[in-house]
Amino acid sequence: MKTYCVAIVGAMGAVGQQMVKMLEASSIEVGVFKPLDLAENVGELIEFRDSAWAVQEAKEGKFTDVDIVLFAAGARASKILAPIAVAEGAVVIDNSSQWRMDEDVPLVVPEVNAEALREHQGIVANPNCSTIQMVMALKPLYEAFGIKRVVVSTYQSVSGNGLAGIEELREQTQAVLEEEDFSIRAFPHQVAFNVIPQIDDFLENGYTKEEWKLVQETQKILSSDIEVSPTAVRVPVFRGHSESINVEFERSFELEEVFNVYEKTAGIAVVDELDRNEYPMPINSKGKSSVFIGRIRRDFSLKSGINMWVVSDNLTKGAALNTVQIAEKMIQMDLITPKTPSEA
Amino acid sequence: MKTYCVAIVGAMGAVGQQMVKMLEASSIEVGVFKPLDLAENVGELIEFRDSAWAVQEAKEGKFTDVDIVLFAAGARASKILAPIAVAEGAVVIDNSSQWRMDEDVPLVVPEVNAEALREHQGIVANPNCSTIQMVMALKPLYEAFGIKRVVVSTYQSVSGNGLAGIEELREQTQAVLEEEDFSIRAFPHQVAFNVIPQIDDFLENGYTKEEWKLVQETQKILSSDIEVSPTAVRVPVFRGHSESINVEFERSFELEEVFNVYEKTAGIAVVDELDRNEYPMPINSKGKSSVFIGRIRRDFSLKSGINMWVVSDNLTKGAALNTVQIAEKMIQMDLITPKTPSEA
Repeated sequence: MKTYCVAIVGAMGAVGQQMVKMLEASSIEVGVFKPLDLAENVGELIEFRDSAWAVQEAKEGKFTDVDIVLFAAGARASKILAPIAVAEGAVVIDNSSQWRMDEDVPLVVPEVNAEALREHQGIVANPNCSTIQMVMALKPLYEAFGIKRVVVSTYQSVSGNGLAGIEELREQTQAVLEEEDFSIRAFPHQVAFNVIPQIDDFLENGYTKEEWKLVQETQKILSSDIEVSPTAVRVPVFRGHSESINVEFERSFELEEVFNVYEKTAGIAVVDELDRNEYPMPINSKGKSSVFIGRIRRDFSLKSGINMWVVSDNLTKGAALNTVQIAEKMIQMDLITPKTPSEA
Repeated sequence: MKTYCVAIVGAMGAVGQQMVKMLEASSIEVGVFKPLDLAENVGELIEFRDSAWAVQEAKEGKFTDVDIVLFAAGARASKILAPIAVAEGAVVIDNSSQWRMDEDVPLVVPEVNAEALREHQGIVANPNCSTIQMVMALKPLYEAFGIKRVVVSTYQSVSGNGLAGIEELREQTQAVLEEEDFSIRAFPHQVAFNVIPQIDDFLENGYTKEEWKLVQETQKILSSDIEVSPTAVRVPVFRGHSESINVEFERSFELEEVFNVYEKTAGIAVVDELDRNEYPMPINSKGKSSVFIGRIRRDFSLKSGINMWVVSDNLTKGAALNTVQIAEKMIQMDLITPKTPSEA
């Protein structure tokens, strides 16, 4: 059996910590685990599959023995370090936005477009969290009925901003309840007991970067023919993103077909029992690997289309899990050769 | 000057309390104020324009001297008491869902369709909170560009469920932070740090009653030609409903025209300064009378259409204020004659 040297850049962050867990639970035979982070965290110990591994500094020279490196350290770190890691012979799977729209970089959700992995030139990009769960929900519909247009409004949790976002919601909530002052750091406004119709910066066209990712990444992953009209909103939820998705189909359909199509799709769990008030919610998605879909109903304002409600854990399938699944898939497709032949 | 005897049924509730405030601040000359509520609240004193008025029981015989009665006590109370009040000669303005779709009952937002008031036969209905702010935002666009279709996803606060909803969010939030147990009463699931894609019961067609109100009430108020595709979601916000609204126009438009049209519209406040991260949010709408609109941007997935973000205080313009504004408008249009001629 082949074993691999796997590194994680940003292993101490919110997504990095999840990656460690997801890698642990994966089918990947990790011979050497190499947690990398900022100099200030060097020497911290990270438990991985019954061993403790010391954090090393993420820098040039650290990737020469690495087969696969998962990046969870933001766009700036990826911009500098990913080409270095590739030059040192590692395959990079990057969770940041840095390389996603690069023509030479496959943008992959394994259940949706694994074949794109064959074109990789060292770097593979993990889509944005809100895109991953949307394309997971759209892909089976695209194949079955064709898709003309999607209108999506998101309800995104604070953990999209990492541990700082989680801490800020907790602090602000406590302060509001006790009528005390609080600070605003991770988000542009108070997030406790509020909703903020802005995630990331604004572009010239009036959309936020987060919204525009939903357009561009969906078109890159699924099809450039799909029109997407997005609104991205931050809500005071710790973990789990929700999306209200309206889909206009190319062809006619029966509602039952939608359920049948999803039943056959790996990674999708339909939760849609209206007589028992059951549908996906962020509090139920925590730590789960599936994309949950419910409130599936015909859109009576269209010739052919539906509304649905899609929830997924933004830290697992929305980030860490998908990254690890890309690595698993690449190994399965024989796209990664270990530098150190296994001793077995 | 004419003075009126004005009663409020349900004066002690969340919306009723707001109605007292809005009536106080209105231009209506109230000669006699008559707060009505459940028998258990009889004798409670309510301050109104420098006098204290004792709560009386809401029941038959209490409306014989009343000119205008505002109902804020839910659909069941309205079903029983509104016809009694009309029989006793009062004009009923009802905030519940009971009479909204009745053919003989005008459903009115004064800025949008005041002329419908002339057809009243004793009862006028106040639309649902989420409808009011949406039709306020749609009306000027409908007149300027025509509207084919609307896709709306809501972010509705817990005060839509009255004081019980507010209390439940507070209790649950505290309990979650302290990792203690809590109960679920006002909502179908935990609302603290969660979003619930269900408001009110489900209909046969897969939509909730709350969602279907957005379809039917909009068509009754504005035009039966407008197609509406709704998703209604509860969020952990105390007060103020937000709506992500996608509008497809009949005719072509320039984005600047949308801003120009809104500038001329009473009751609308545009907050849309992206370079300063300014847009409407529920924490800024509390107690305000306007409907706030921002994030106005072209929908590039359509020939002609926009996305926008609409926020309003569901307890003021969304309920109490609109009800009082209907009364003001009816007086202004000379549709209400006081039973007791003024002494002045």
